[in-house]
Amino acid sequence: MDAIRSIIRTVPDFPKPGIQFRDITPLLADPKLMLRTVEALVQPFMDADISAVAGMEARGFIFGALAAQLLGAGFVPLRKPGKLPADVHRIDYDLEYGSASLELHRDAIAPGGRVLIVDDLLATGGTAAASCALIEAGGGQVSGCAFVVELDDLGGRDRLHPYRTHSLIRY
Amino acid sequence: MDAIRSIIRTVPDFPKPGIQFRDITPLLADPKLMLRTVEALVQPFMDADISAVAGMEARGFIFGALAAQLLGAGFVPLRKPGKLPADVHRIDYDLEYGSASLELHRDAIAPGGRVLIVDDLLATGGTAAASCALIEAGGGQVSGCAFVVELDDLGGRDRLHPYRTHSLIRY
Repeated sequence: MDAIRSIIRTVPDFPKPGIQFRDITPLLADPKLMLRTVEALVQPFMDADISAVAGMEARGFIFGALAAQLLGAGFVPLRKPGKLPADVHRIDYDLEYGSASLELHRDAIAPGGRVLIVDDLLATGGTAAASCALIEAGGGQVSGCAFVVELDDLGGRDRLHPYRTHSLIRY
Repeated sequence: MDAIRSIIRTVPDFPKPGIQFRDITPLLADPKLMLRTVEALVQPFMDADISAVAGMEARGFIFGALAAQLLGAGFVPLRKPGKLPADVHRIDYDLEYGSASLELHRDAIAPGGRVLIVDDLLATGGTAAASCALIEAGGGQVSGCAFVVELDDLGGRDRLHPYRTHSLIRY
Protein backbone atom coordinates (compact mmCIF):
# COMPACT_ATOMS: atom_id res chain seq x y z
CA MET A 1 0.00 0.00 0.00
CA ASP A 2 2.99 2.31 0.47
CA ALA A 3 3.42 2.66 -3.29
CA ILE A 4 -0.23 3.63 -3.65
CA ARG A 5 -0.07 6.05 -0.75
CA SER A 6 3.02 7.76 -2.08
CA ILE A 7 1.63 8.25 -5.60
CA ILE A 8 -1.52 9.99 -4.33
CA ARG A 9 -0.91 13.72 -4.53
CA THR A 10 -2.19 16.16 -1.94
CA VAL A 11 -3.37 19.45 -3.44
CA PRO A 12 -3.90 22.08 -0.72
CA ASP A 13 -6.92 24.37 -0.65
CA PHE A 14 -8.98 22.55 -3.28
CA PRO A 15 -11.84 22.90 -3.93
CA LYS A 16 -11.85 25.51 -1.16
CA PRO A 17 -9.40 26.97 1.37
CA GLY A 18 -8.45 24.55 4.13
CA ILE A 19 -9.30 21.36 2.21
CA GLN A 20 -6.43 18.97 1.49
CA PHE A 21 -7.55 17.32 -1.75
CA ARG A 22 -6.29 13.75 -2.29
CA ASP A 23 -5.67 13.57 -6.02
CA ILE A 24 -5.67 10.07 -7.50
CA THR A 25 -4.85 11.11 -11.09
CA PRO A 26 -1.14 10.15 -10.74
CA LEU A 27 -2.32 6.67 -9.74
CA LEU A 28 -4.55 6.46 -12.82
CA ALA A 29 -1.48 7.20 -14.95
CA ASP A 30 0.38 4.11 -13.66
CA PRO A 31 -1.23 0.97 -15.14
CA LYS A 32 0.68 -1.56 -13.01
CA LEU A 33 -0.12 0.23 -9.78
CA MET A 34 -3.72 0.65 -10.90
CA LEU A 35 -4.01 -3.11 -11.34
CA ARG A 36 -2.53 -3.70 -7.87
CA THR A 37 -4.92 -1.12 -6.44
CA VAL A 38 -8.02 -2.69 -7.94
CA GLU A 39 -6.84 -6.18 -6.96
CA ALA A 40 -6.51 -4.98 -3.36
CA LEU A 41 -9.88 -3.24 -3.56
CA VAL A 42 -11.77 -6.42 -4.48
CA GLN A 43 -9.63 -8.94 -2.58
CA PRO A 44 -11.91 -9.22 0.50
CA PHE A 45 -14.89 -9.81 -1.80
CA MET A 46 -13.44 -12.43 -4.14
CA ASP A 47 -15.45 -15.21 -2.50
CA ALA A 48 -18.55 -13.14 -1.79
CA ASP A 49 -20.36 -14.18 -4.99
CA ILE A 50 -20.69 -10.57 -6.14
CA SER A 51 -23.03 -10.28 -9.12
CA ALA A 52 -22.60 -6.56 -9.75
CA VAL A 53 -20.29 -3.69 -8.89
CA ALA A 54 -21.96 -0.31 -8.59
CA GLY A 55 -19.89 2.82 -9.16
CA MET A 56 -20.86 6.42 -8.57
CA GLU A 57 -20.48 9.04 -11.27
CA ALA A 58 -17.82 10.00 -12.13
CA ARG A 59 -14.58 8.71 -10.54
CA GLY A 60 -16.36 5.64 -9.22
CA PHE A 61 -16.82 4.61 -12.86
CA ILE A 62 -13.04 4.21 -13.25
CA PHE A 63 -12.41 1.94 -10.27
CA GLY A 64 -15.82 0.31 -10.45
CA ALA A 65 -15.49 -0.82 -14.06
CA LEU A 66 -12.07 -2.33 -13.35
CA ALA A 67 -13.27 -3.98 -10.14
CA ALA A 68 -16.22 -5.52 -11.99
CA GLN A 69 -13.88 -7.11 -14.54
CA LEU A 70 -11.68 -8.60 -11.82
CA LEU A 71 -14.71 -10.03 -10.06
CA GLY A 72 -16.32 -11.26 -13.28
CA ALA A 73 -19.34 -9.17 -12.32
CA GLY A 74 -21.50 -6.69 -14.16
CA PHE A 75 -20.97 -2.96 -13.76
CA VAL A 76 -23.88 -0.77 -12.71
CA PRO A 77 -23.51 3.00 -13.03
CA LEU A 78 -25.12 5.21 -10.36
CA ARG A 79 -25.69 8.44 -12.19
CA LYS A 80 -26.57 12.06 -11.67
CA PRO A 81 -30.20 12.88 -12.51
CA GLY A 82 -31.33 12.87 -16.12
CA LYS A 83 -28.51 10.75 -17.53
CA LEU A 84 -29.99 7.26 -17.45
CA PRO A 85 -32.50 6.78 -20.27
CA ALA A 86 -34.83 4.06 -18.93
CA ASP A 87 -36.97 3.95 -15.77
CA VAL A 88 -35.00 4.77 -12.62
CA HIS A 89 -35.03 4.72 -8.86
CA ARG A 90 -33.81 8.03 -7.51
CA ILE A 91 -32.42 9.09 -4.15
CA ASP A 92 -31.91 12.63 -2.90
CA TYR A 93 -29.43 13.17 -0.09
CA ASP A 94 -27.74 15.93 1.85
CA LEU A 95 -24.13 16.96 1.41
CA GLU A 96 -22.05 19.12 3.72
CA TYR A 97 -23.10 22.08 1.59
CA GLY A 98 -26.32 21.54 -0.33
CA SER A 99 -27.77 18.33 -1.67
CA ALA A 100 -27.35 15.85 -4.49
CA SER A 101 -29.17 13.00 -6.17
CA LEU A 102 -28.31 9.67 -7.75
CA GLU A 103 -30.28 7.44 -10.09
CA LEU A 104 -30.22 3.72 -10.81
CA HIS A 105 -31.96 1.91 -13.65
CA ARG A 106 -34.87 -0.08 -12.24
CA ASP A 107 -33.82 -3.16 -14.19
CA ALA A 108 -30.10 -2.89 -13.35
CA ILE A 109 -29.96 -5.28 -10.40
CA ALA A 110 -31.21 -8.85 -10.49
CA PRO A 111 -33.55 -9.54 -7.52
CA GLY A 112 -31.38 -10.40 -4.51
CA GLY A 113 -28.21 -9.72 -6.47
CA ARG A 114 -25.11 -9.20 -4.33
CA VAL A 115 -23.64 -5.78 -5.02
CA LEU A 116 -20.27 -4.27 -4.16
CA ILE A 117 -20.19 -0.47 -4.11
CA VAL A 118 -16.90 1.04 -5.29
CA ASP A 119 -15.65 4.61 -5.18
CA ASP A 120 -12.29 6.33 -5.00
CA LEU A 121 -12.99 8.21 -1.77
CA LEU A 122 -14.88 7.71 1.48
CA ALA A 123 -15.33 11.10 3.16
CA THR A 124 -18.53 11.80 5.12
CA GLY A 125 -20.14 8.72 3.63
CA GLY A 126 -23.20 10.61 2.41
CA THR A 127 -22.87 9.51 -1.19
CA ALA A 128 -21.99 5.94 -0.24
CA ALA A 129 -24.91 5.62 2.20
CA ALA A 130 -27.26 6.96 -0.47
CA SER A 131 -25.81 4.44 -2.93
CA CYS A 132 -26.49 1.58 -0.50
CA ALA A 133 -30.08 2.73 -0.10
CA LEU A 134 -30.46 3.00 -3.86
CA ILE A 135 -29.16 -0.54 -4.42
CA GLU A 136 -31.65 -1.84 -1.87
CA ALA A 137 -34.46 0.13 -3.49
CA GLY A 138 -33.43 -1.61 -6.71
CA GLY A 139 -33.86 -5.04 -5.13
CA GLY A 140 -30.19 -5.81 -4.48
CA GLN A 141 -28.25 -6.72 -1.36
CA VAL A 142 -25.21 -4.61 -0.47
CA SER A 143 -22.29 -6.96 0.16
CA GLY A 144 -19.96 -4.13 1.05
CA CYS A 145 -18.30 -0.90 0.06
CA ALA A 146 -14.70 -0.53 -1.15
CA PHE A 147 -12.73 2.69 -1.41
CA VAL A 148 -9.21 3.58 -2.46
CA VAL A 149 -8.93 6.42 0.07
CA GLU A 150 -10.71 6.92 3.40
CA LEU A 151 -10.64 10.19 5.34
CA ASP A 152 -10.90 8.92 8.91
CA ASP A 153 -11.89 12.18 10.57
CA LEU A 154 -15.11 12.55 8.63
CA GLY A 155 -16.84 9.51 10.10
CA GLY A 156 -17.89 7.87 6.84
CA ARG A 157 -17.20 4.38 8.17
CA ASP A 158 -19.60 4.89 11.09
CA ARG A 159 -22.24 6.18 8.74
CA LEU A 160 -21.95 3.01 6.62
CA HIS A 161 -22.27 0.68 9.62
CA PRO A 162 -23.24 -2.22 9.50
CA TYR A 163 -22.21 -2.53 5.86
CA ARG A 164 -18.78 -4.06 5.41
CA THR A 165 -16.39 -1.21 4.58
CA HIS A 166 -12.96 -1.75 3.06
CA SER A 167 -10.43 0.94 2.22
CA LEU A 168 -6.82 0.83 1.11
CA ILE A 169 -5.32 4.12 2.30
CA ARG A 170 -6.50 6.01 5.37
CA TYR A 171 -5.71 9.62 6.20
CA MET B 1 -19.99 -7.56 -33.11
CA ASP B 2 -23.53 -8.93 -33.46
CA ALA B 3 -23.64 -9.82 -29.77
CA ILE B 4 -22.62 -6.29 -28.85
CA ARG B 5 -25.09 -4.74 -31.26
CA SER B 6 -27.95 -6.82 -29.97
CA ILE B 7 -27.31 -6.02 -26.31
CA ILE B 8 -27.36 -2.25 -26.89
CA ARG B 9 -30.84 -1.03 -26.08
CA THR B 10 -32.57 1.70 -28.02
CA VAL B 11 -34.65 4.02 -25.84
CA PRO B 12 -36.94 6.22 -27.95
CA ASP B 13 -37.40 9.93 -27.30
CA PHE B 14 -34.52 10.35 -24.84
CA PRO B 15 -33.32 12.87 -23.84
CA LYS B 16 -35.87 14.63 -26.08
CA PRO B 17 -38.61 13.66 -28.55
CA GLY B 18 -37.30 12.19 -31.79
CA ILE B 19 -33.94 11.06 -30.40
CA GLN B 20 -33.24 7.32 -30.42
CA PHE B 21 -30.89 6.91 -27.45
CA ARG B 22 -28.42 4.02 -27.72
CA ASP B 23 -28.18 2.72 -24.15
CA ILE B 24 -25.01 0.78 -23.34
CA THR B 25 -25.95 -0.07 -19.74
CA PRO B 26 -27.01 -3.65 -20.64
CA LEU B 27 -23.54 -4.14 -22.13
CA LEU B 28 -21.92 -2.87 -18.91
CA ALA B 29 -23.86 -5.54 -17.02
CA ASP B 30 -22.27 -8.38 -19.04
CA PRO B 31 -18.61 -8.78 -18.00
CA LYS B 32 -17.63 -11.24 -20.74
CA LEU B 33 -19.11 -9.12 -23.49
CA MET B 34 -17.53 -6.02 -21.93
CA LEU B 35 -14.11 -7.66 -22.16
CA ARG B 36 -14.72 -8.58 -25.81
CA THR B 37 -15.89 -5.03 -26.50
CA VAL B 38 -12.84 -3.39 -25.00
CA GLU B 39 -10.52 -5.90 -26.71
CA ALA B 40 -12.10 -4.95 -30.05
CA LEU B 41 -11.88 -1.26 -29.17
CA VAL B 42 -8.11 -1.33 -28.64
CA GLN B 43 -7.22 -4.03 -31.20
CA PRO B 44 -6.14 -1.64 -34.01
CA PHE B 45 -3.91 0.21 -31.56
CA MET B 46 -2.14 -2.72 -29.89
CA ASP B 47 1.08 -2.03 -31.80
CA ALA B 48 0.78 1.76 -31.76
CA ASP B 49 2.92 2.25 -28.65
CA ILE B 50 0.09 4.03 -26.82
CA SER B 51 1.34 5.65 -23.62
CA ALA B 52 -2.00 6.94 -22.38
CA VAL B 53 -5.71 6.49 -22.94
CA ALA B 54 -7.82 9.60 -22.45
CA GLY B 55 -11.48 9.22 -21.54
CA MET B 56 -14.14 11.88 -21.37
CA GLU B 57 -16.31 12.32 -18.29
CA ALA B 58 -18.38 10.33 -17.55
CA ARG B 59 -19.06 7.23 -19.68
CA GLY B 60 -15.65 7.53 -21.33
CA PHE B 61 -14.18 6.76 -17.91
CA ILE B 62 -15.68 3.26 -18.01
CA PHE B 63 -14.37 2.18 -21.40
CA GLY B 64 -11.22 4.29 -21.17
CA ALA B 65 -10.04 2.81 -17.88
CA LEU B 66 -10.54 -0.73 -19.20
CA ALA B 67 -8.85 0.10 -22.53
CA ALA B 68 -5.85 1.56 -20.68
CA GLN B 69 -5.39 -1.68 -18.73
CA LEU B 70 -5.51 -3.81 -21.88
CA LEU B 71 -2.93 -1.56 -23.54
CA GLY B 72 -0.73 -1.35 -20.43
CA ALA B 73 -1.12 2.42 -20.69
CA GLY B 74 -1.98 5.15 -18.21
CA PHE B 75 -5.49 6.54 -17.97
CA VAL B 76 -6.02 10.29 -18.28
CA PRO B 77 -9.42 11.72 -17.33
CA LEU B 78 -10.79 14.62 -19.38
CA ARG B 79 -13.09 16.35 -16.95
CA LYS B 80 -15.82 18.92 -16.70
CA PRO B 81 -14.60 22.27 -15.34
CA GLY B 82 -13.65 22.59 -11.70
CA LYS B 83 -13.10 18.90 -11.02
CA LEU B 84 -9.34 18.51 -11.56
CA PRO B 85 -7.40 19.94 -8.63
CA ALA B 86 -4.05 20.87 -10.18
CA ASP B 87 -3.19 23.24 -13.07
CA VAL B 88 -5.22 22.51 -16.19
CA HIS B 89 -5.57 23.18 -19.88
CA ARG B 90 -9.18 23.96 -20.74
CA ILE B 91 -11.11 23.89 -23.98
CA ASP B 92 -14.54 25.39 -24.60
CA TYR B 93 -16.54 24.02 -27.51
CA ASP B 94 -19.98 24.24 -29.08
CA LEU B 95 -22.61 21.55 -28.85
CA GLU B 96 -25.75 21.22 -30.94
CA TYR B 97 -27.55 23.12 -28.20
CA GLY B 98 -25.29 25.29 -26.06
CA SER B 99 -21.66 24.77 -25.20
CA ALA B 100 -19.42 22.72 -22.95
CA SER B 101 -15.88 22.61 -21.63
CA LEU B 102 -13.30 19.98 -20.78
CA GLU B 103 -10.15 20.18 -18.68
CA LEU B 104 -6.89 18.22 -18.68
CA HIS B 105 -4.18 18.34 -16.02
CA ARG B 106 -1.17 20.15 -17.48
CA ASP B 107 1.16 17.41 -16.24
CA ALA B 108 -1.02 14.50 -17.39
CA ILE B 109 0.65 13.77 -20.73
CA ALA B 110 4.36 13.10 -21.16
CA PRO B 111 5.79 15.32 -23.94
CA GLY B 112 5.15 13.59 -27.26
CA GLY B 113 3.18 10.84 -25.56
CA ARG B 114 0.95 8.81 -27.89
CA VAL B 115 -2.65 9.07 -26.75
CA LEU B 116 -5.73 7.05 -27.67
CA ILE B 117 -9.03 8.81 -27.05
CA VAL B 118 -11.87 6.49 -25.96
CA ASP B 119 -15.56 7.16 -25.55
CA ASP B 120 -18.73 5.13 -25.77
CA LEU B 121 -20.36 7.22 -28.51
CA LEU B 122 -19.32 9.19 -31.59
CA ALA B 123 -22.18 11.49 -32.55
CA THR B 124 -21.38 14.94 -34.01
CA GLY B 125 -17.76 14.58 -32.94
CA GLY B 126 -17.74 17.89 -31.08
CA THR B 127 -16.58 16.43 -27.80
CA ALA B 128 -14.04 14.14 -29.47
CA ALA B 129 -12.57 16.92 -31.60
CA ALA B 130 -12.26 19.11 -28.51
CA SER B 131 -10.56 16.22 -26.71
CA CYS B 132 -8.02 15.87 -29.53
CA ALA B 133 -7.23 19.58 -29.34
CA LEU B 134 -6.90 19.34 -25.57
CA ILE B 135 -4.45 16.42 -25.80
CA GLU B 136 -2.34 18.40 -28.27
CA ALA B 137 -2.46 21.48 -26.01
CA GLY B 138 -1.15 19.17 -23.30
CA GLY B 139 1.85 18.20 -25.43
CA GLY B 140 0.61 14.79 -26.59
CA GLN B 141 0.08 13.24 -30.01
CA VAL B 142 -3.35 11.80 -30.82
CA SER B 143 -2.85 8.28 -32.18
CA GLY B 144 -6.55 7.81 -32.78
CA CYS B 145 -10.05 7.75 -31.39
CA ALA B 146 -12.04 4.62 -30.53
CA PHE B 147 -15.77 4.40 -29.90
CA VAL B 148 -18.19 1.62 -29.08
CA VAL B 149 -21.04 3.21 -31.06
CA GLU B 150 -20.92 5.58 -34.04
CA LEU B 151 -23.98 7.43 -35.36
CA ASP B 152 -23.13 7.70 -39.04
CA ASP B 153 -25.61 10.40 -39.98
CA LEU B 154 -24.12 13.00 -37.67
CA GLY B 155 -20.80 13.30 -39.46
CA GLY B 156 -18.51 12.83 -36.48
CA ARG B 157 -16.00 10.79 -38.48
CA ASP B 158 -15.54 13.63 -40.98
CA ARG B 159 -15.06 16.10 -38.18
CA LEU B 160 -12.28 13.96 -36.71
CA HIS B 161 -10.43 13.65 -40.03
CA PRO B 162 -7.45 13.10 -40.34
CA TYR B 163 -7.30 11.37 -36.95
CA ARG B 164 -7.67 7.63 -37.14
CA THR B 165 -11.22 6.78 -36.07
CA HIS B 166 -12.32 3.31 -35.04
CA SER B 167 -15.82 2.26 -33.99
CA LEU B 168 -17.41 -1.09 -33.31
CA ILE B 169 -21.10 -0.59 -34.03
CA ARG B 170 -22.46 1.87 -36.55
CA TYR B 171 -26.04 3.07 -36.81
